[in-house]
Amino acid sequence: MAVYTEVGDEDLIAFIAEYDLGEVISCKGIAEGVENTNYLLQTTMGRYILTLYEKRVKESDLPYFLGLIEHLASAGVTCPVPLHGRDGNALRRLCGRPAAMVSFLDGMWPRRIKPDHCSALGEALAQLHVAGDTYAATRPNALSVHAWRPLFEACAARADSVSPGLSDTLARELDHLESNWPKDLPSGVCHADLFPDNVFFIGDKLSGIIDFYFACTDFFAYDLAICLNAWCFERDNSFNITKARIMLSRYRTVRPFSDAEVQALPLLARGSAVRFLLTRLYDWLHHPEGALVKPKDPLDYLAKLNFHQTVKSPDAYGLE
Amino acid sequence: MAVYTEVGDEDLIAFIAEYDLGEVISCKGIAEGVENTNYLLQTTMGRYILTLYEKRVKESDLPYFLGLIEHLASAGVTCPVPLHGRDGNALRRLCGRPAAMVSFLDGMWPRRIKPDHCSALGEALAQLHVAGDTYAATRPNALSVHAWRPLFEACAARADSVSPGLSDTLARELDHLESNWPKDLPSGVCHADLFPDNVFFIGDKLSGIIDFYFACTDFFAYDLAICLNAWCFERDNSFNITKARIMLSRYRTVRPFSDAEVQALPLLARGSAVRFLLTRLYDWLHHPEGALVKPKDPLDYLAKLNFHQTVKSPDAYGLE
Repeated sequence: MAVYTEVGDEDLIAFIAEYDLGEVISCKGIAEGVENTNYLLQTTMGRYILTLYEKRVKESDLPYFLGLIEHLASAGVTCPVPLHGRDGNALRRLCGRPAAMVSFLDGMWPRRIKPDHCSALGEALAQLHVAGDTYAATRPNALSVHAWRPLFEACAARADSVSPGLSDTLARELDHLESNWPKDLPSGVCHADLFPDNVFFIGDKLSGIIDFYFACTDFFAYDLAICLNAWCFERDNSFNITKARIMLSRYRTVRPFSDAEVQALPLLARGSAVRFLLTRLYDWLHHPEGALVKPKDPLDYLAKLNFHQTVKSPDAYGLE
Repeated sequence: MAVYTEVGDEDLIAFIAEYDLGEVISCKGIAEGVENTNYLLQTTMGRYILTLYEKRVKESDLPYFLGLIEHLASAGVTCPVPLHGRDGNALRRLCGRPAAMVSFLDGMWPRRIKPDHCSALGEALAQLHVAGDTYAATRPNALSVHAWRPLFEACAARADSVSPGLSDTLARELDHLESNWPKDLPSGVCHADLFPDNVFFIGDKLSGIIDFYFACTDFFAYDLAICLNAWCFERDNSFNITKARIMLSRYRTVRPFSDAEVQALPLLARGSAVRFLLTRLYDWLHHPEGALVKPKDPLDYLAKLNFHQTVKSPDAYGLE
């Protein structure tokens, strides 16, 4: 939850005047998203999200992200659509920050994940992968396997203060992942951060996918592995194979898996667990006193990693 | 800015089912108000504010506050209207906290105060005072003159670390205020916290007054003195007599002043400056590390106090 940049009424009205959106009726800073400042804006024409991009998002990446959601939305993915000003630009500046307006998506993210949610997610993720295939721009995944060792090195000395033995566990796991990481799986646009708080539902129906600010070009199966970790574990960190089976089988009705993808899934799931374990561990050890955002507990991801380390074959995820 | 209590989708849907408000479409925690948790809720029927009352608001005061805004709204004051559930109750519980839903008010609060804002504010405040006259319940002002010495004593030892000499200044000022505080001015319902961020405008038109959680029974002229301090000083803390004159003269077109009120205004302005200086000083010295809310600088109110201490007669506020 965070509003890092406060936008005044006069600045806002001048900004909105660049669009054909009528008059501003209200504007509320919303306590969602930890990377950027977001406002829910109501005009005489409708509801929109105004985002001011803060320091954690690289400004040079913004055209990729905005172009991507525009591309995906036009292909039928229920994601925010960037609005263009009268000058044609979707990306502009407000209060000294890069800023953009996107359409508002109805719905709420599910706190208690049910199998139906996993089913709808599997279908939507496959549709996203297929729709992204015709997006020309690319962006390497800045948080893939090559990024993990530097993160680990910045945490290694203090990792055992979070959990005894964590440093050794991570060192051994990184050796394994770096030696075995696949090189040639089917790849394309990945969301790469598809946690439940980025997926909205109205009832059981998926109504929107948001927050594409980690989107990148990577293995489709790695994006699925991220979802396995984010959606298919219970609160006590036990793995729910029913949710995984439903998610994966629904996915493959839209985009079938190759054999190589199926075989790679256990390793990708370990990698995905390490990715979030490391970034959370880094934030946990490095967050400033008095920060507006509380870091997430890294140890949930240690439990998930421990599970995947015991997996002997893709059957463990409900794949046949 | 703060969302202290996170409300999940299932809890919310069960809560809203107690009302006749249709289906929930979206719900966003909003970064406004420092005392409570507020959500902007959209249903198929309209937009509402859902408030969960946190520890700083006394639960036993809530019926007074909710009854008051219901009373004021029915008398034509543009303030939020509490919604009643099917059982007739406006006050209920959600996620272990007292909670209520109120109507949403359009508009934005003005960051740069213009004389027109002060004029509209003066009229609205007088209307609020008149409308409140028929509200039967009362609530003593817990932050009036008798509350200031205990606050001072909790800060005195460290006050000079914020500004050299502050402790002496406050000690002398409190002696003066306690000896001279009026006893029998016209009194009734006061908002008692009518800062610009609690007053919405659409263009130059005042569209709403919010945040009645300091409302109490006190001198009307003290409420005006709070507004003098909150609305009629420039950012460099210079007093703008034009704004004061406009605010006060517009106020008296709706509710005329007594002579006693006019004569008391300089003292009440000093008292109001001390009230906010002390509460801000207290928060400044006592806020916990890592708090979600940054305390406001108390020294703006020292500058305002210094101005009022030089005032020899009510003429200084543009009163004739």
